[in-house]
Amino acid sequence: MRDFSHSTAHLALNTATLGHNMPGAGAGWSPEQTLDACARRGIGGIVFWRPEIEGRAVAIGQYARQVGVKVVGLCRAPFLTGPLSFKNNTEITDDFRKAIDETASLGGSILTIVVGGVEVGTKGVRESLKRVAEHLASVLAYAAQRDVRLALEPLHPMYGGDRSCLTTTRDALDLCDQLADPNIGIAIDVYHVWWDTDFSRQIARAQGRIFGFHLCDWLAHTTDFLLDRGMMGDGVADLKSLRMSVEKEGYTGFCEVEIFSEHNWWKRDPNEVLDIIVERFHTVC
Amino acid sequence: MRDFSHSTAHLALNTATLGHNMPGAGAGWSPEQTLDACARRGIGGIVFWRPEIEGRAVAIGQYARQVGVKVVGLCRAPFLTGPLSFKNNTEITDDFRKAIDETASLGGSILTIVVGGVEVGTKGVRESLKRVAEHLASVLAYAAQRDVRLALEPLHPMYGGDRSCLTTTRDALDLCDQLADPNIGIAIDVYHVWWDTDFSRQIARAQGRIFGFHLCDWLAHTTDFLLDRGMMGDGVADLKSLRMSVEKEGYTGFCEVEIFSEHNWWKRDPNEVLDIIVERFHTVC
Repeated sequence: MRDFSHSTAHLALNTATLGHNMPGAGAGWSPEQTLDACARRGIGGIVFWRPEIEGRAVAIGQYARQVGVKVVGLCRAPFLTGPLSFKNNTEITDDFRKAIDETASLGGSILTIVVGGVEVGTKGVRESLKRVAEHLASVLAYAAQRDVRLALEPLHPMYGGDRSCLTTTRDALDLCDQLADPNIGIAIDVYHVWWDTDFSRQIARAQGRIFGFHLCDWLAHTTDFLLDRGMMGDGVADLKSLRMSVEKEGYTGFCEVEIFSEHNWWKRDPNEVLDIIVERFHTVC
Repeated sequence: MRDFSHSTAHLALNTATLGHNMPGAGAGWSPEQTLDACARRGIGGIVFWRPEIEGRAVAIGQYARQVGVKVVGLCRAPFLTGPLSFKNNTEITDDFRKAIDETASLGGSILTIVVGGVEVGTKGVRESLKRVAEHLASVLAYAAQRDVRLALEPLHPMYGGDRSCLTTTRDALDLCDQLADPNIGIAIDVYHVWWDTDFSRQIARAQGRIFGFHLCDWLAHTTDFLLDRGMMGDGVADLKSLRMSVEKEGYTGFCEVEIFSEHNWWKRDPNEVLDIIVERFHTVC
């Protein structure tokens, strides 16, 4: 297991942690300001969200290289299924390709995929998972052409209805098995898998297909479906054990901190948030 | 698979569905009024919550038999672990025995167990699950003596922190395997397991240990952790498929409707709620 007690080289910031830095929200920092703040602390990587880099991906990617922060990837592809997806397949495919282009333009290598919820009018997740597989199959050649890897992120089962019919590491790896393409893998977020006693057994099937590992914490008394994530160490997830499981399978990539927290971390001075992230990364992750 | 299109003999009401009938909340009906309302509709069974029957269990059990409604069981044993449990083991054991006594006094045969969340100061669920097993082992002899069966209910993983470190059918059956006692089994609630693609494979291990099957629905856009359950047919759970899985394993018991719904069903006329339950039971379950 890697020792992070003195190094931040493998720490990455997902900008959602600072309220996405959107104008008027959270820090309100520009992507360049965020990159500077990461560089000052030796934070090795960054993951942007699409609205932040809209139309400026190439320039932001260049700036990141200039200050020595690796753009790990981009959040995220459009929902492929469910009530929050675009209404027709052409829109989904077009936006998916656009997201792949934006990832490539940034100089990032990984596009995160949150697959979307249960298809309207259907019951259970199986039919929706089939649709997800079809959508993914249709963009794999394009992703390969742009040298972008697609990271399927299983979401916590509480998002099963509207955001992700893909809810377990098991299902995500089953989907990878089915698609059998070197550009498709999984992203593991401790928030989504911390409760799963089957996780260590499932992740042992991953064999080089872990494209991302995300950090935050599950607060014992979580009060909001989306925006009440905890800082590492403040919750009940066994962070070290989860990291050990992914590293045992050969994962050597970034640990990406992604904290949605409307009433706590998003309200604080972003410099304080970053300092605390660095300290917790050294001590509890 | 049983045909419920014309029969309510295997339909049971969990009184939580009417806002627990507590004075000033929901229907505000007495247990006897609720029993009458069930009897009028041919609803075959009922499950009470402890505060409703406090001190009157024997009389309420007698009234139920008189009107021909079977008291299936009682909700629920105290939390055995986590931040919401009693502070010391003696209190937990005493209250657990009291709940067993109350179930027996009612003439019910099943006590539902929601195990409690992650033990304070620990990380992940494994240590807490061990504590759960210890607590259960300590009351098994007493449950047998009172002829009460204990139904472990795995809760949706969104309750993993504070209410139930037991989150999957797999973990619940593992616990049953470990305790190896005829008085311990599981209760399956569609709300908690609907997302789990491993469910049908796991439930095939149950072999006579399914003590309960609970109905409601998972609304695609669920907005509250506790009190936003849907009426059968209004959500995305594949109810028939889930029932088919438990019946395939020999389950012949009641289908217990349990809907926590602060802003919808709890606000309606309880007679209307019961009528709709009966109609949905015939058509979508």
